[in-house]
Amino acid sequence: MRLPSFLRRRPPVAAVDREMGTSPGAILAAGGAEDKVKKREILERFVKEAGGGKARIAILPTASSIPEERAAFYSGVFGGLGAEAVSVPIAARADAQSPSNVEAIRAASGVFLTGGDQSRLVDVLSGTPALAAIVERLRAGGVLAGTSAGASAFSATMIVGGQTGLTLRKDAVKLSAGLGIITRLIIDQHFSQRDRLGRLLTAVALKPEALGVGIDEDTAIVYYGSGDLEVIGTGQVFIVDNSRAIANEVKGVPKTRPFTLAGVVLHVLTAGDRFNVVSREMVLEGGVPARA
Amino acid sequence: MRLPSFLRRRPPVAAVDREMGTSPGAILAAGGAEDKVKKREILERFVKEAGGGKARIAILPTASSIPEERAAFYSGVFGGLGAEAVSVPIAARADAQSPSNVEAIRAASGVFLTGGDQSRLVDVLSGTPALAAIVERLRAGGVLAGTSAGASAFSATMIVGGQTGLTLRKDAVKLSAGLGIITRLIIDQHFSQRDRLGRLLTAVALKPEALGVGIDEDTAIVYYGSGDLEVIGTGQVFIVDNSRAIANEVKGVPKTRPFTLAGVVLHVLTAGDRFNVVSREMVLEGGVPARA
Repeated sequence: MRLPSFLRRRPPVAAVDREMGTSPGAILAAGGAEDKVKKREILERFVKEAGGGKARIAILPTASSIPEERAAFYSGVFGGLGAEAVSVPIAARADAQSPSNVEAIRAASGVFLTGGDQSRLVDVLSGTPALAAIVERLRAGGVLAGTSAGASAFSATMIVGGQTGLTLRKDAVKLSAGLGIITRLIIDQHFSQRDRLGRLLTAVALKPEALGVGIDEDTAIVYYGSGDLEVIGTGQVFIVDNSRAIANEVKGVPKTRPFTLAGVVLHVLTAGDRFNVVSREMVLEGGVPARA
Repeated sequence: MRLPSFLRRRPPVAAVDREMGTSPGAILAAGGAEDKVKKREILERFVKEAGGGKARIAILPTASSIPEERAAFYSGVFGGLGAEAVSVPIAARADAQSPSNVEAIRAASGVFLTGGDQSRLVDVLSGTPALAAIVERLRAGGVLAGTSAGASAFSATMIVGGQTGLTLRKDAVKLSAGLGIITRLIIDQHFSQRDRLGRLLTAVALKPEALGVGIDEDTAIVYYGSGDLEVIGTGQVFIVDNSRAIANEVKGVPKTRPFTLAGVVLHVLTAGDRFNVVSREMVLEGGVPARA
């Protein structure tokens, strides 16, 4: 099973997750539609990871079609949670070179990528000083968060579209190169709500070395340098491990027909669950990994 | 993890699959909406298993709300495939005691249960001479087929309803006692088309000793006494193996919240694939089981 050539041509820009090691930094990937007015659990956790009352949040509304409105809205929410928040107005590649924008990222303890269109996010940020500054913050212990498109874009291989439902077919998913910050995971969002398991299974059939992670709305993973991720929020996180498949026949099967994918390990996790993406096992209370 | 008491109270009526051994008989379970006018692959396979040109098919339209129409329709289809077919007009429990109906089943090489309402099928047939005759035919090498509700009803623990989608919650599935002909499998149908993975995962969380089998429309399993099943038709069969779960927390979680189910093994099979339900492994060409 090899990646399509369009994916292999473009190497990950700045893979961080394999290098984070014992870095205190964390990546928070949310499935979209997170609660912003009531319990605000996910956004509050982000602020806490970024320093709580001392947090300085840089909001990048780059993925959004209404970036100013989005940034102003999240700015109010983060303010209400006790953080200082600034909008970093990056809408085009030129903005991602601007010294003032890069400086705003460097000064932040947490960087937040809004939802919108993950392809726009990648087109604007790839290979820019702004992305380099985000990666630098993360390596130095800063926190990076993204919701919906902002979460998908973290992956080296990014899901940009596909079919709804349970059918596994070559054309059930559209993949492209993402920001490359995370190489171990392929992240999908609005997962149960938009019925996306078929496209995630198809993605891991095409790229079995990555773990598929499908995140529900108002749900997130907090992913640490140790390889542990923790689930927070009200929904589910689907983890799809295709590394031990006993049949994976996507190659050679016409795109009009479903293909066989046997021996996938599926984990459906909820709030409080911890999972290590290196050992691909759940982490039980006390740090002891669970074994099948 | 134990079965709810309403399921434990009523033991399987006539479990056959654990006893079939080397019996030449087979059970064909179809996911509904099988092609009846063009390739007719699934119905043709049933006729072939039942003796081809020598097949005598007994049609039980018991599950249907329009039993006479359904029986007449299938009678025409089986006739077109070269078999002799008779309708066995069992609509109420009294009909399932009638000597002429029981005799019609005894004289058949294949018995076919139509779709409709699986609860009606179980209410009418459970504990009757008609069901005993079906089981007797199967033990003697006859073939039993069911589509849609007719397939679901084979199970000892039967899915009678539930929620659509990917959410795992206690109330995502409604279980009841089925005909009990198959004890190893919990069968669901119209699977991808009606988006039923959440309810099947919930079913195996409640009953981890059974394999969950979700069958797409125009797709079927042919299940032999050896424990092998073969997939036929144009869609997918989802096999959900919860026997090696590393977390299965349905108990104690309120029905309003999703629960954790980790370490499920998922197989998505297509036409030509063979799987052994005892070893829970794929069977490769030449009869060698595939291992993870």
